[in-house]
Amino acid sequence: MPLNFQGVKLAVWGGDARTIVLLEQLVNWGASVQVVGLPVKNFKVTVLAELRETSRDIQALILPVPGVDEQKKIYAVYHDQPLILSAAELTSFPAGLLVFVGVAQPYLKEIAVQTGIELIEIMNLDETAILNSIPSAEGAIQMAMERLPITIHGSYTLVLGFGRTGVTLTRILAAMGAHVTVIARKPAQQARAFEMGVLSADFPELPALMSQADIIFNTVPALILSRSLLEKAAPEVLIIDLASTPGGTDFTAAQELGITAVLAPGLPGRVAPKTAGVILARVIRRILLERLSS
Amino acid sequence: MPLNFQGVKLAVWGGDARTIVLLEQLVNWGASVQVVGLPVKNFKVTVLAELRETSRDIQALILPVPGVDEQKKIYAVYHDQPLILSAAELTSFPAGLLVFVGVAQPYLKEIAVQTGIELIEIMNLDETAILNSIPSAEGAIQMAMERLPITIHGSYTLVLGFGRTGVTLTRILAAMGAHVTVIARKPAQQARAFEMGVLSADFPELPALMSQADIIFNTVPALILSRSLLEKAAPEVLIIDLASTPGGTDFTAAQELGITAVLAPGLPGRVAPKTAGVILARVIRRILLERLSS
Amino acid sequence: MPLNFQGVKLAVWGGDARTIVLLEQLVNWGASVQVVGLPVKNFKVTVLAELRETSRDIQALILPVPGVDEQKKIYAVYHDQPLILSAAELTSFPAGLLVFVGVAQPYLKEIAVQTGIELIEIMNLDETAILNSIPSAEGAIQMAMERLPITIHGSYTLVLGFGRTGVTLTRILAAMGAHVTVIARKPAQQARAFEMGVLSADFPELPALMSQADIIFNTVPALILSRSLLEKAAPEVLIIDLASTPGGTDFTAAQELGITAVLAPGLPGRVAPKTAGVILARVIRRILLERLSS
Amino acid sequence: MPLNFQGVKLAVWGGDARTIVLLEQLVNWGASVQVVGLPVKNFKVTVLAELRETSRDIQALILPVPGVDEQKKIYAVYHDQPLILSAAELTSFPAGLLVFVGVAQPYLKEIAVQTGIELIEIMNLDETAILNSIPSAEGAIQMAMERLPITIHGSYTLVLGFGRTGVTLTRILAAMGAHVTVIARKPAQQARAFEMGVLSADFPELPALMSQADIIFNTVPALILSRSLLEKAAPEVLIIDLASTPGGTDFTAAQELGITAVLAPGLPGRVAPKTAGVILARVIRRILLERLSS
Repeated sequence: MPLNFQGVKLAVWGGDARTIVLLEQLVNWGASVQVVGLPVKNFKVTVLAELRETSRDIQALILPVPGVDEQKKIYAVYHDQPLILSAAELTSFPAGLLVFVGVAQPYLKEIAVQTGIELIEIMNLDETAILNSIPSAEGAIQMAMERLPITIHGSYTLVLGFGRTGVTLTRILAAMGAHVTVIARKPAQQARAFEMGVLSADFPELPALMSQADIIFNTVPALILSRSLLEKAAPEVLIIDLASTPGGTDFTAAQELGITAVLAPGLPGRVAPKTAGVILARVIRRILLERLSS
Repeated sequence: MPLNFQGVKLAVWGGDARTIVLLEQLVNWGASVQVVGLPVKNFKVTVLAELRETSRDIQALILPVPGVDEQKKIYAVYHDQPLILSAAELTSFPAGLLVFVGVAQPYLKEIAVQTGIELIEIMNLDETAILNSIPSAEGAIQMAMERLPITIHGSYTLVLGFGRTGVTLTRILAAMGAHVTVIARKPAQQARAFEMGVLSADFPELPALMSQADIIFNTVPALILSRSLLEKAAPEVLIIDLASTPGGTDFTAAQELGITAVLAPGLPGRVAPKTAGVILARVIRRILLERLSS
Repeated sequence: MPLNFQGVKLAVWGGDARTIVLLEQLVNWGASVQVVGLPVKNFKVTVLAELRETSRDIQALILPVPGVDEQKKIYAVYHDQPLILSAAELTSFPAGLLVFVGVAQPYLKEIAVQTGIELIEIMNLDETAILNSIPSAEGAIQMAMERLPITIHGSYTLVLGFGRTGVTLTRILAAMGAHVTVIARKPAQQARAFEMGVLSADFPELPALMSQADIIFNTVPALILSRSLLEKAAPEVLIIDLASTPGGTDFTAAQELGITAVLAPGLPGRVAPKTAGVILARVIRRILLERLSS
Repeated sequence: MPLNFQGVKLAVWGGDARTIVLLEQLVNWGASVQVVGLPVKNFKVTVLAELRETSRDIQALILPVPGVDEQKKIYAVYHDQPLILSAAELTSFPAGLLVFVGVAQPYLKEIAVQTGIELIEIMNLDETAILNSIPSAEGAIQMAMERLPITIHGSYTLVLGFGRTGVTLTRILAAMGAHVTVIARKPAQQARAFEMGVLSADFPELPALMSQADIIFNTVPALILSRSLLEKAAPEVLIIDLASTPGGTDFTAAQELGITAVLAPGLPGRVAPKTAGVILARVIRRILLERLSS
C-alpha cells in the first residue's frame, strides 16, 4: 500500500489514548493535522483552541471512537472544557466532508443528515471488527490467566459463538494447547472449526458440555449462559463474557452459584490502547487512500 | 450430534468411489439402504437391479455428486448399463421427497419441478465447500511438493483469493513454514490474513509481488494470471490453479514462457476419495437428522 | 499408562498448595496416603499429628518442592509448628526408601547418605523442567500482556536462550503472531528455531537487534542484559527475566534508563499452582510405577 | 551473520545436484571456487580438468555428501571418468586443510590421518540433521499423501521415535490437523510431545495403539515394526519408514499381511535437492566464517 499522505489535511477533534496513537501514525505518514482537545505538544501538529478555528479545506475530520453524546459533547478525556458539536460547526465545510467516528449516536447521525457530511462508522466495518478481535482475544486470555490456577494449555475450553472474535480466540487458544470446543449455530461455522482442528457443537448440545469446561468464553450478544445452564457447570469454572453490555451471562445466577463470571466489553482500548490506535490508523488510512485516489 | 439413524430408509442410485464410502457410513449409522448401480455385496444393503424396484417409503434418495447428465443418465462409474432417470421414476414417491445430489444440471432441476421432489445440491452448501477445502488444500500442496526441488517450508508463496479454499490453504502453508502472501480484494479478508500471521495485499499490488514467488496457488475463478503477469514471474515458479475449469491462468502464455502451471480442479474426489465420501456422509447426516427431528 | 495405584502406601510431609493438588491426584489414583502438616480433612487420607507416627511400610515419602532448610525445617506453609526432620525420623524405614523432593539442600542430601534413603530431586529432571516450561511460558506472557499497551500479536520479541523454557515460550509466542527472534549459541538450536519458523541469531548479534524489540524474554542464568546492551534498547521495551534469581538483567541499569524489567522466577507455583501440582503428580506417578513394576 | 566470503578460495571435487546448488550459493556469497567434475559453465567458477590442478592456497575443499568409496572414487554423478582420490592428491596442501564431506567412509578417514587434513563430516552434525529433518518430514508426508485415500487432516497417525526428524514430523502433522501419537522412550521426550499438544506413549504401549492407526511414520533405526506388531495393524494402514536402510520394519511380514510399507531413506536429496544444497551451503558457511574469523 502506498503511503503517500504528503499534503493530506486532516482535523482531529477530541479523543482518548487511542486517538493520540492514531494521530502519531497519521503525522508519520505525512499528513498535516489540526487538533482540538488533545495534549500533543511534541507532535508536528497544529493545536487549535476552538473547533471553529479548523481550516475549511481539510479532507477529513476524525472524531473519537465513542463519538458525540446526546448532550452534543464530543468524547475528549484529556480536555477539561466540554467540546460541543453543534450543527453550525459542520456547516461551512465542503459538502460531502468525510467524518470518521467509531460509532455514531442518533444525535450525530441527525446532524450528519442536516449538514451533508459523510459519516464513516469505523467500528461497524467488518475489517475493524476483525482487527480488533486480536486485542479482544488476547485481553480475554489475559483475564483468564489472571484468574485461573491452571494453564490455558490442557484446559477444557468452550468458545460460544464463532464470528469474528470467536474465530480469533479459537485460533489462539488452540495454538496455546487448550482443548477447544466451539459452539456455533451454522453448519458452515462448525465446518470451519473442524478445519481448524477443534471440536464443535450446536447450542442444543451445550448443556451436556457444561460440566467439563474449565473456561467458557462467550461472544454471543444474547442471554446464552442462563441459570439452568450455569447450574450444570463445575463451580470452579471461569466465564469471560466478551459480548457487549449486558453480556450473555446471567451474572446474578452465576454469583449465587459461586461461579466467577466477568463481563469484559471494550477490551482493545483497555488492554492494548496502542494497538487499538494503530488499528484505527490502518483502517482510516486505507479508506482515505481509496477516496483520495479515486 | 445423536447418531440415531436406526430405521431410516434411504436409496442410493449410481455413484463412484465416494458414494461407496458414503454408503458404508450410512449403514454404520443404522440406516436401511437400497442400492442401484454400485458393487457393494459385502455391505448390509439391499441391491436392486432396477430403479423402479426402489421402495416408495424411503425418506431420501441419494444421487451421485455429478448428478444426471443431459442424456438423462445418472453418473454411475461401476455400472455397465446406463441408469436412465426419467420423470416417471420419481413420480410415485411421496411429495417433497428429499433428493441429495452434488450439483444439479438443468435437466434434473426441470424434473424436480415437474415431480415435486426437493433437490438439495450438497456441493453448493457453504458447509460442504469448507469441508472439501481440506482435501483440496492438501491435494494442491501434494502437487506442489511433487513438482518442486525446494521445500514448502521457507518457500515464498502467493495465495490468490481468500475464500473457503484460500483460507484453508493459507493456514496449512503457514503452519508448514511457508512465507505466505494472500492476495484478496476485501479489506476484511486482508484483516483476517493479518490475524492469521501472514502478509496480504490487494490485486493491484500483485505485479510487484510476482517475481519473488516460488509457488502461486490460484483459487479465483477468473483470468487472474494473465500473460503480462506471468512475464513478471521467475521462470522456475510453479502455478497450481484450483479454480474450476478453465482456471484462472493463461496456460498458453505459461507454456510459452516455460512456466509450469497445473490446472487442478476437483481435487477432493481425486486425491482423497475416502475423505470426500466421509464429507458427503457428514453433510447428508446433518441435514437428514434436522429434517427427521423437525 | 496403567493407573494401578491401588494398595500403594505413601506419606506426605509438609508442603504448599501444589502438594494438596498432588495429594488429591494420588488419592484419586488409588493410593493410601498418610499426611503430616497439610489441611486436608475432606480427602480420604490419614492425617497424622507427628512425623514419627508414619507407618514404616510406606513405599515412598513425598517432601515439598523447596524441601528441608538448613535449620532442618520441612517447608510447610499450612502448619503452624515447625516440622523438624532429624536423621532419626528416617532411620527406621526400610533401606532404600524412595524420598521425593523438589530440590534437595545440602542438609537433606547429608542425612540421605546417613540414613540410606534414595532421594529423587524432581525439579532436576529434564521431564519436570519441560512440563514446568508450560506454566512458566504462560506466566511470562501474562506478565507481558499486563504491562504492555500493545498486543503480543505483531510485537517484535526476543527470546534469549533456547533451552527447555525458551523452546516452549517461542512456540507459544510465534503461534500468537509475535515476530520472534531466538538468540542462542549452538548452531543446532538455531537450526531448530529455523524449523519452527522463527528467526534466530547468536549472542554477538544481539546488540544490533536490541533497538527493535518490544519485548525481551530472558531465560539464560547469566548476566546477559548488561548496561551497554540496555542502552541500545528502546525506552518502552519490556524485559521479563525468567532466569533463576538474580536473573540475567542489570536491573539497576534498567531502572536508571527508565526501562521496565521484571524478575519472574518460580512462575509455575505462582501463576498456576494447580497445574504445578498436577505436574508433580504426573512425574511421581511415572517413577513410582516404573519402580514398583520392576 | 556477516556474509563476507569475498576473497575466500575454495575447491569443489565431484558431487551431485545438491553440490551445484551449494556451489551457486558459495559464488553468490563472493567465494572464488575451483571445480572438478561438475557441469557448471554458467557460473563464475574456474573449471579444472584434473584434481591436481587445484591451487594449493585454497582455504577449504568440499567433497560430495556420499564422499569417497572404498575404490577411492569420489562420488561424481556428472563426470564420466572416475575421480580417484589418492593420498598423493592431498599431500601438498598446507597442514590442517579443512575438508568438508557428508559422511566419511573408512578409506577417506584413513588418508585424512595420513595427510593431516581436517575432515568435517557435515551429515553427522546435529545442526545438519535438524535442517535436513525439514525436507525429510515433507518428503515423508508427500509419500503418505500420494498413497492414501484420506487426508492427513483427521488421520490417526503414529510417529515412532522423537529425535530430530520425529520432532519436525510431529510439528507439521499436528499443524495439518492429524491426530498424532508420539511413541518415545524417554520421559523428557514425552513431556515435550505433551507441550506440543500431541499424545504420547512408551514403546510397551505400542501394541495397543496399532489397530487404530491410519499412518505410521518410523524414525527409529532398529526393528520396531515386527511381524507381531504388524499383525495388530489394520490392513489399510500405511507405513513410511524413514530410518536408514534397512529401516525399522519387517517388510516381508508387511507384504505377506497386505500392508503397504515404504522404505524412504535419504529423502532430502531426493525430494528437495535444491533445499538440500542450500542446507549444505548454510552449514559450510557458518563453519568457514567461524574458522576464518578466529
